[in-house]
Amino acid sequence: MMKRSSRMFSMIAVIIAAAFPASALFAQDKPLVIASQGSFFVGGEAKNVPARGGGAQEDITINQMYVQYQSPVNANQHVPVVMVHGCCLSSKTWETTPDGRMGWNEYFVRKGRSVYLADQVSRARSGFDGSKINAVKAGTLAPSELPNVLTASHQTAWSVFRFGPTYGTAFPDGQFPIQAVDELYKQMIPDLNSLLPATNPTWTNMAALAKKLNGAILMGHSESGFFPEQAALIDPSGVRAIISIEMPCVTNFSAAQLSTLAKIPTLIMFGDHLGDIKGGFVNWMDSYEGCQKFVQQIKKADGDAEMMYLPQLGIHGNSHMLMQDKNNLQLADLILTWIDKHVDTKKPARTR
Amino acid sequence: MMKRSSRMFSMIAVIIAAAFPASALFAQDKPLVIASQGSFFVGGEAKNVPARGGGAQEDITINQMYVQYQSPVNANQHVPVVMVHGCCLSSKTWETTPDGRMGWNEYFVRKGRSVYLADQVSRARSGFDGSKINAVKAGTLAPSELPNVLTASHQTAWSVFRFGPTYGTAFPDGQFPIQAVDELYKQMIPDLNSLLPATNPTWTNMAALAKKLNGAILMGHSESGFFPEQAALIDPSGVRAIISIEMPCVTNFSAAQLSTLAKIPTLIMFGDHLGDIKGGFVNWMDSYEGCQKFVQQIKKADGDAEMMYLPQLGIHGNSHMLMQDKNNLQLADLILTWIDKHVDTKKPARTR
Repeated sequence: MMKRSSRMFSMIAVIIAAAFPASALFAQDKPLVIASQGSFFVGGEAKNVPARGGGAQEDITINQMYVQYQSPVNANQHVPVVMVHGCCLSSKTWETTPDGRMGWNEYFVRKGRSVYLADQVSRARSGFDGSKINAVKAGTLAPSELPNVLTASHQTAWSVFRFGPTYGTAFPDGQFPIQAVDELYKQMIPDLNSLLPATNPTWTNMAALAKKLNGAILMGHSESGFFPEQAALIDPSGVRAIISIEMPCVTNFSAAQLSTLAKIPTLIMFGDHLGDIKGGFVNWMDSYEGCQKFVQQIKKADGDAEMMYLPQLGIHGNSHMLMQDKNNLQLADLILTWIDKHVDTKKPARTR
Repeated sequence: MMKRSSRMFSMIAVIIAAAFPASALFAQDKPLVIASQGSFFVGGEAKNVPARGGGAQEDITINQMYVQYQSPVNANQHVPVVMVHGCCLSSKTWETTPDGRMGWNEYFVRKGRSVYLADQVSRARSGFDGSKINAVKAGTLAPSELPNVLTASHQTAWSVFRFGPTYGTAFPDGQFPIQAVDELYKQMIPDLNSLLPATNPTWTNMAALAKKLNGAILMGHSESGFFPEQAALIDPSGVRAIISIEMPCVTNFSAAQLSTLAKIPTLIMFGDHLGDIKGGFVNWMDSYEGCQKFVQQIKKADGDAEMMYLPQLGIHGNSHMLMQDKNNLQLADLILTWIDKHVDTKKPARTR
């Protein structure tokens, strides 16, 4: 009963959202009721480093992943959703948009889902291992050993996030709230993933978080877009579904790996103007085509994989930052509807 | 319905109890009702840096301050509270405690206050200016120009945060949930304040935030304990009250500076065992005595300043991390009562 009416609401919302700008529809005038909220860490290990001011070695903790969550009342009707941000960004990605509208984190909570936002290991509130920088400063390590600090410039963001054909010129049909682009630039912070080992601890921690939650949907974007798949290959036991948004896909998995991934419902989403940026750092059309191939490989392995290429659904102008685009809640509804159909109806352990 | 939510409750309790063997988990089972929540940045400016991969200069944004907020229904009955964390920490300081209890952020919201959590400039979701590190890696700057990356070790934290007389030995009456100290260690992340100019942009941004909110109470702790005073000296117009927790105080202000500060109600709080750690980096008894002097100076300038030295109130065993101590909500109540008496009753613009 509950289920049917909430699905009907989503359907109506999709229809209405297609006709009107989202900002006018979902004003935050209804209070948000939270059953529980908070934050915690997943993973983390001690590392011995030279003590401050010389003397004996001391311990610091590295590779921990900070997670912030909110659960609405009756959240057990849905599988929790874990959202992980992309390069040079933090969990701010999913919160209030640059122009002040509701982000996906709160919208998903308002739609009855528990939402977990993770800062990638080596970023933001998860911290990073600064010992190499201190060793170079102390003269015990060569400057070439310093990590590459990746901070996306305004110019890089404009191109990689597909705001327009050249810096300062937006696509006429662009969905990104371009008048507030300076607020997006403030979200862009140093990315120190170059410090991490080949098996990224964020993957391990995402798998552990899904297990700890007794089942979760893992969602990644851009740099982290394929992290849900990588997490599932480390430990699939908690991964109830994968949502991968705008990233390159791996297309040379072994049959065993594909068989593991094929057991997990997978949704991939791409926005618009994939081939309309010339000479950027990323060729999004290549990424899209690789992911098309990946979807076919999963299907061939009897998996449930779907490619949502927004222009093919008649939704135009979306940037790479589609969770912040003007139609962000319309896109959220597409995802929620997919979850309802492919994940929540197939829950083994929970009661409806 | 009741059955469902109680099953959910016990499920979460089991999961969390596995990670934190603590007692008073989820004491607040009443839903939290939020009128509005979100995040935004204060401040920030463009900086020209060498482009990624060579070529022309490009722009990044630095010195922005990330702020996350929640407002309860009828929040206009109280002045908003801005909380700023200390050294080597983030806003995680104010959230769920290491042993899984409610932090001050949610407690203040449940007590009807709007709460704003700011990550210090150059930390966590506020990001930092990584261009010096890249210049040293590129060979265009000497290694000695690298910032000092300050990460508090486990050993340093034990001593500076006053968990016990020697590393691994806790004070018998200690209020810090010492069995969960590993979870505190995960909160400790690199502090790059050494990159900042003499007038810390966090001070300027705190003053700007207070003004933007049309009046706010500024609260600082440890490294940021005196930031509210520094913010008020930059622009006092929005600073309705100052709450300074466990830090050294400046005691050589000019008469004009003291006159500015004396117009703002000020509360200073110190915990226990100030003189019981030998040979640490910080002499907390010196800090306490300096702040006693500062309180007298404000009073002489006709100001409303109060020193809450917890042992003098009969409250014993508090560590430096008193917002995470086992009696953290008792201490929050002391602050809320002080606010009600010294700030909220004197509001000029708002109605009760």
